[in-house]
Amino acid sequence: MRPMLLNGEWQLGAAGAETIASANPATGQRLSARYPIASWIEIEQALEAAQQAVEALVDFPPEGIAEFLETYAANIEIAGEALVEMAHLETALPKEPRLLSVELPRTTNQLRQAANAVRDHSWRTATIDTQTHIRSIYGPLAGPVVIFGPNNFPFAFNSIAGGDFAAAIAAGNPVIAKAHPGHLGTTHLLAEAAFKAVQSANLPPAMVQMVYHLNPSDGLKLVGHPLVGATAFTGSRSAGMKLKAAADQAGKPIYLEMSSLNPVFVLPGALEEDSSKVATELFNSCMLGGGQFCTKPGLTVLLQNETSEAFIESVKTHFQNSGTATLLDESGPKNITAALSVLEQHGAELLVGSQPAAGDGFRFASTLLRVSGQQFLSQPHALQTEAFGPVSLIVMAQDMDQIYDIAATLEGNLTGSIYSHSQGQDDSLYNRLAVILSRKVGRLLNDKMPTGVAVSPAMNHGGPYPSTGHPGFTAVGIPASLRRFAALRCYDNVRPHRLPVELQNPNPTGTMWRFINGTWTQKDI
Amino acid sequence: MRPMLLNGEWQLGAAGAETIASANPATGQRLSARYPIASWIEIEQALEAAQQAVEALVDFPPEGIAEFLETYAANIEIAGEALVEMAHLETALPKEPRLLSVELPRTTNQLRQAANAVRDHSWRTATIDTQTHIRSIYGPLAGPVVIFGPNNFPFAFNSIAGGDFAAAIAAGNPVIAKAHPGHLGTTHLLAEAAFKAVQSANLPPAMVQMVYHLNPSDGLKLVGHPLVGATAFTGSRSAGMKLKAAADQAGKPIYLEMSSLNPVFVLPGALEEDSSKVATELFNSCMLGGGQFCTKPGLTVLLQNETSEAFIESVKTHFQNSGTATLLDESGPKNITAALSVLEQHGAELLVGSQPAAGDGFRFASTLLRVSGQQFLSQPHALQTEAFGPVSLIVMAQDMDQIYDIAATLEGNLTGSIYSHSQGQDDSLYNRLAVILSRKVGRLLNDKMPTGVAVSPAMNHGGPYPSTGHPGFTAVGIPASLRRFAALRCYDNVRPHRLPVELQNPNPTGTMWRFINGTWTQKDI
Repeated sequence: MRPMLLNGEWQLGAAGAETIASANPATGQRLSARYPIASWIEIEQALEAAQQAVEALVDFPPEGIAEFLETYAANIEIAGEALVEMAHLETALPKEPRLLSVELPRTTNQLRQAANAVRDHSWRTATIDTQTHIRSIYGPLAGPVVIFGPNNFPFAFNSIAGGDFAAAIAAGNPVIAKAHPGHLGTTHLLAEAAFKAVQSANLPPAMVQMVYHLNPSDGLKLVGHPLVGATAFTGSRSAGMKLKAAADQAGKPIYLEMSSLNPVFVLPGALEEDSSKVATELFNSCMLGGGQFCTKPGLTVLLQNETSEAFIESVKTHFQNSGTATLLDESGPKNITAALSVLEQHGAELLVGSQPAAGDGFRFASTLLRVSGQQFLSQPHALQTEAFGPVSLIVMAQDMDQIYDIAATLEGNLTGSIYSHSQGQDDSLYNRLAVILSRKVGRLLNDKMPTGVAVSPAMNHGGPYPSTGHPGFTAVGIPASLRRFAALRCYDNVRPHRLPVELQNPNPTGTMWRFINGTWTQKDI
Repeated sequence: MRPMLLNGEWQLGAAGAETIASANPATGQRLSARYPIASWIEIEQALEAAQQAVEALVDFPPEGIAEFLETYAANIEIAGEALVEMAHLETALPKEPRLLSVELPRTTNQLRQAANAVRDHSWRTATIDTQTHIRSIYGPLAGPVVIFGPNNFPFAFNSIAGGDFAAAIAAGNPVIAKAHPGHLGTTHLLAEAAFKAVQSANLPPAMVQMVYHLNPSDGLKLVGHPLVGATAFTGSRSAGMKLKAAADQAGKPIYLEMSSLNPVFVLPGALEEDSSKVATELFNSCMLGGGQFCTKPGLTVLLQNETSEAFIESVKTHFQNSGTATLLDESGPKNITAALSVLEQHGAELLVGSQPAAGDGFRFASTLLRVSGQQFLSQPHALQTEAFGPVSLIVMAQDMDQIYDIAATLEGNLTGSIYSHSQGQDDSLYNRLAVILSRKVGRLLNDKMPTGVAVSPAMNHGGPYPSTGHPGFTAVGIPASLRRFAALRCYDNVRPHRLPVELQNPNPTGTMWRFINGTWTQKDI
């Protein structure tokens, strides 16, 4: 049995406690390694240890946190081969290029960007009003950040290595990571790499803690626990909603990334210009990670005409030729089947696929559906059911007004894309559509599919409810993502030598950006 | 009957609908003017009209919003005398200096600062990554902001004129203001001044709407309505909690300012140095606005010794000599009596006061209580009951450890103050206490009472739950307070001419601060 990481110790949990295991999605077989389910007593111990870490961090130089993040990134690289092997075994995601050349470097890059943000201090938005003697700054929360990671990125969104982790740590908070059951061994290896880095940076032992699993009712208690600072969750809408309710009731911040259809609108001029290119891009975007990207285009909206019919035929051919996707979870085929059933019951017509694939493993056939704009508008809720896998729905609208109406009925999404003619012949349609769509999404794209979430300071991997829980925060992009795990702290008439160093007159680094008397500056006062 | 302001029309509501009236707190008599209670149908109409305003604002130049805010400020000044008369009648707050020379200028100043923020654009945090072609910016929400104002600032926190209003409008959102029943006539006059400004700035008629009252169940429906962008609430914890639950369940942002004891810790050296000065400052701070400031010091913590006993005697004398305070609401005396009863039942000893004052009007005697540190620690929850009025509780701790423990048991507060010896002899006590206290409060003060909330960019009028609903936002301070009413919008590969002007290469104002490739700058790209 593989141990949990609690307060700097590797613990197996109580004797006889329940355990879980991951499965190999390629074969469907459960892997032999067992992992303990944390008891509530262990969770409470983790919270108390994290509280001690909060205390210990008060006098801990930020440089140590930056050092931790960088050492951890290096440790991940050292363990890279083992990590990729394990993640491949547990998720069936391809080793190359996906795990080794894309996701692993993205993960270490995020950790290093977070280290830079720690050293830079600018993310803290030090705001100084010399006239009133009031100064304020974002700082760590008063308790640890609890992170629930998703199944689809075993490294880059892992609760103990991904974007939420990097942001929570960089903001100065201890983390209690809850592994995803789909990649327990990967999370164990990452926890080993993380804990080595905790030790070499001399951080408090409970800076990083990790449990594999907890009972659902304990999860609800955890996110609302008085000692918790905030929670980050990436996963299904049903689980997210339950955690949100529990955290909300306790007045605890929770940041959720729950679901998104990522609608793609292809305007007529774009199809006339290069229908085949758009079809290929749509298909490729739908198939990334077996269709299990949070930014997978689940809905494409077209204007009915012959070019659009030909486009659908082309997409259909791609789907037909693509075989099946391996899903991350045993529950995948069942969940997709249920979602397809909702879509079909509400008038979506199956074009390709729709079956759990035969044979071993967790697989599903690439599946394409279509529905008329009129039908979509008559059942907008049901026809926005997310099928997390290689499934996409095309809506054929009879005119542009119907397209605008479809955009207006959309729920909150992470992204929305519009393809339009490069020489401007779709521009009047674009202009009206973009106004409607941009209110429904966190990120508006032009001439580009939504998969691919660059770690850029300008990124918004967020969006209106229910794609997330709040339209003002992003889960990707440094330094903005740190702000979720920070409290605003104001110092009124506090004696100069007692101020945090970032708020004292001299600029502590010489390069930190501060907002002083209404001006952003790197200068001293 | 005075009309509501709905979609640019002054409406009396349905014939025979229920009405309410304000009272004169000085006499206790209900004023003759009647105000309609809005029906749910009217609320829905207001929401739909606000949605039209959202649409109309897309192409509306920000300059128009700035112009509105400034014209409104000027209109308030023109109506200043009538406003002060009415507010005095409805709240019994003194005309001078409070209403005319303090609160009215603060209100117009906030509106003008908000206008400057609109013109400046810097609050929007335009973030540009030229390498990845990703650009993001904060912009208006997709629906109106609903504002519930408190009873205690008829101008500066009024739902149709105060800080939340200025911030919501400056962020580009229509507002639906819900008046406080304590100053309906004042709110009516402000709505008149606001609507004139809406008209002269040619804003959509539903940019500013106002209802006097709605049924509590309709309030809950309103904050969770799909068309709402967000809600701001300032008031009692019980009402705030109900609204929070309704908004949370619907996934709608809600910003609450609910309650705060604003603990003041007076360390031994500070008392030795000038006990009498601190006593006077504490007393004055407690009595501002009849003790009905959200930042009133409701809890003072001292170290037991003779100087502290003498200090209490001195504070007691102030309280004894101060007579009674006029409360804002009929419910005030009842609520304070109930709170005192909880405090006394849990061991607080009455030193002065404790009675609704005899005679006309809503009055309460200035009331001082004390309790031992040990007793406080044995009943920390009950002894943090807020008494909204001229009431304060002194806690006498037997040693510094008990003081630290008291700080550690505090709920989230807006502010926390520490008085300490000016020459540093309290510094080791301060250092430990400040670490504990700063996590419990939004604003930490030195040698200063918490009342007085400067409208500074560095202000945090916020704090950990349950003083507010989220530790990362402030209700006072421009531009930070605007961020509550904004959504993050990201543009990925969007063609340059289609970007919001703030995200195009040239700096649209020449002075707007933008975060370009990791650097804050006012330059063009």
